[in-house]
Order: sequence, then C-alpha cells, then structure tokens
Amino acid sequence: MSAAGTDDLEAFPPLEWASQDPSNCSIGHTIDFVGDKWALLILRELVFGLDRFDALQSHLAISRRTLTERLDALVSHGLVEREPIKVAGQRSRHRYVLTPAGLELIPLIVALREWGDRHRPDATPPPVALLHSGCGGSVSIHFRCEHGHDIASDQDIRLARGPGAIPLVAQG
Amino acid sequence: MSAAGTDDLEAFPPLEWASQDPSNCSIGHTIDFVGDKWALLILRELVFGLDRFDALQSHLAISRRTLTERLDALVSHGLVEREPIKVAGQRSRHRYVLTPAGLELIPLIVALREWGDRHRPDATPPPVALLHSGCGGSVSIHFRCEHGHDIASDQDIRLARGPGAIPLVAQG
Repeated sequence: MSAAGTDDLEAFPPLEWASQDPSNCSIGHTIDFVGDKWALLILRELVFGLDRFDALQSHLAISRRTLTERLDALVSHGLVEREPIKVAGQRSRHRYVLTPAGLELIPLIVALREWGDRHRPDATPPPVALLHSGCGGSVSIHFRCEHGHDIASDQDIRLARGPGAIPLVAQG
Repeated sequence: MSAAGTDDLEAFPPLEWASQDPSNCSIGHTIDFVGDKWALLILRELVFGLDRFDALQSHLAISRRTLTERLDALVSHGLVEREPIKVAGQRSRHRYVLTPAGLELIPLIVALREWGDRHRPDATPPPVALLHSGCGGSVSIHFRCEHGHDIASDQDIRLARGPGAIPLVAQG
C-alpha cells in the first residue's frame, strides 16, 4: 500500500491520514461492533454451524453471563437473530443465526483464518478447510478492482482520501 | 457456507465443528494476536501510514501507557518492528513499521473497512478510498479457489474438516 500515487487523480488525492479525523472511519465502526475476542469467536462458531446457546457456551468454554452479554450485543447491532424453535411439549428455545449483515462478516472471519493458517504454531496443519463446492479447490482471499483487474500485490493498491474525509481540526 | 457438500470427498469430510477441539483453531490463534480494539486500530494507523509513537498517540487519543503496552505486544508477536531513526544532535527515536507478517494482516484491515463502508451510519460516504494504482478502480475483496475459479457466493464454499482437526474428547 502506498499513500502517494504517481497518477494524481483530482477526485482522489493521496491519503493524509494523520490530518484526517478518524472518528468517522469505517474500520473503527466495524471494530466498535466486533472488535473483541468473544464477539469474533462467537461469529466463528455461528459461521461454522453452531447455533444453540448451550452448544456455544460449551464449545467456547465461556461463562453464561459473558455469552449472554455478547449475544445480546450482536443481536442489538443487527448481526445475529434469535430464531424461536418450537418443539411440542418442551419449553420454547432459540437458535442464533447470522443476519444478512452478519453474513457479510464472512470475509473478516476468512481473513482471520488465513493469517492464522500461515502462522500456525509449529507449522501444524490447519483444522478447517474452505473448499470451492464446485471443484474442491481450496478457497482464499484476493483483491480485485471494480474494472476486473486482479491486484497481485498490496503495492498495487493506492490509499486515497475518500469522499467522506473530514479534515482534523488542530487543537489549541 | 455449508457444512455438508454433495461431493463427499474422502480427504475432506464435512466440518462437524461442535465435535472438533477449537483449541488449535487458526482463527482463534489470530484473535489471540489482534482480537482487541486497540491492536486493530493501531494496525489501521500503521497501514494508513502513521509510524511515530506521538502521532499514533495523538491520532488515536489513546493513553501513552495503553499504546506502549499494545505496541510492545505487537512487537513481541512479530507483527511490528521498532526501527531506529538517528538524527544528529537529537536523542534517538523510533518509527514503527509492519513486519512481513504484519503486512499479511492487510486483508483483515480491508475486510473490516469493507463491512464498515457498507454499513456506515446514515449512509455517509467513506473517508478512505482503496484504488488500483494501475487504473484507479476501487479495490475490494473476492474469494477464489486454487484452481482459479471465482467464488460468486458464500454458498459456493464448502466447510470441511482440515488435516489438523482434533476430535473433541467428551468430558465426563
């Protein structure tokens, strides 16, 4: 990544992050929702198919109180939904499912996995495989631009000021 | 994503995450390194070009103690390096730079940004643009398999047990 480009597009001047107000940052916004260990681990469990409170609690070895708090936060942020399960003669139960907004966090979970796969302690083999259901090939993350060009390296990405950039007001 | 596939490859049986030991999970491993708000925000600042302690401290509005702790952890995990800057007549200073392992977290930062861009409060425009330096097109994350197939939807990804899967031993 580079903050300055040789092509000096008027529409997108080079990023000068230090002089930009970070309070409206999209990354910070996402971190407010999922920037803690338990939120991320719960999302992993949901992506990997667990959906009941007791199963999550036991598999994560998390306290019931912490799990309740974190699930409530994910529900109130619109990432997870409580879906009632009715079984005749039993008290009503719930399963937890990712909402469409929650499913959009799958690239984040895959990015966490990919880094971890490359940096596993003692280079042990990975415990989970992500395969293309069509051909069985291993799936990984790539960057591509809106014009269909594959981005081979981070060096081919130019960081620029976006339309929502807010200049930082110097404090006296 | 689905835990069961129609192609029942012997090498990669469907994931049964609830009966798998999560302790060697690659996602959990990465979360141990960067699964907190400040670590992620510091990584954002470094990716966006800030590299001095004072600049990070001021831009993040973080206490010096917390920043020192988090930077020390990122350095000890091998994600960030302290690079000495020698200026004649001044006391020695450092800049903080991402190591190769740290740079491999760029997809994680971009995934955080992409979700945040899609779910910005009041649909305000994004403050930072990621552009292909070749053509200026906006860059985004895609999934592709090792055989070169584009993955159009999460539904085309099959979750499977990996070679490092450890069965969970039932506790009595």
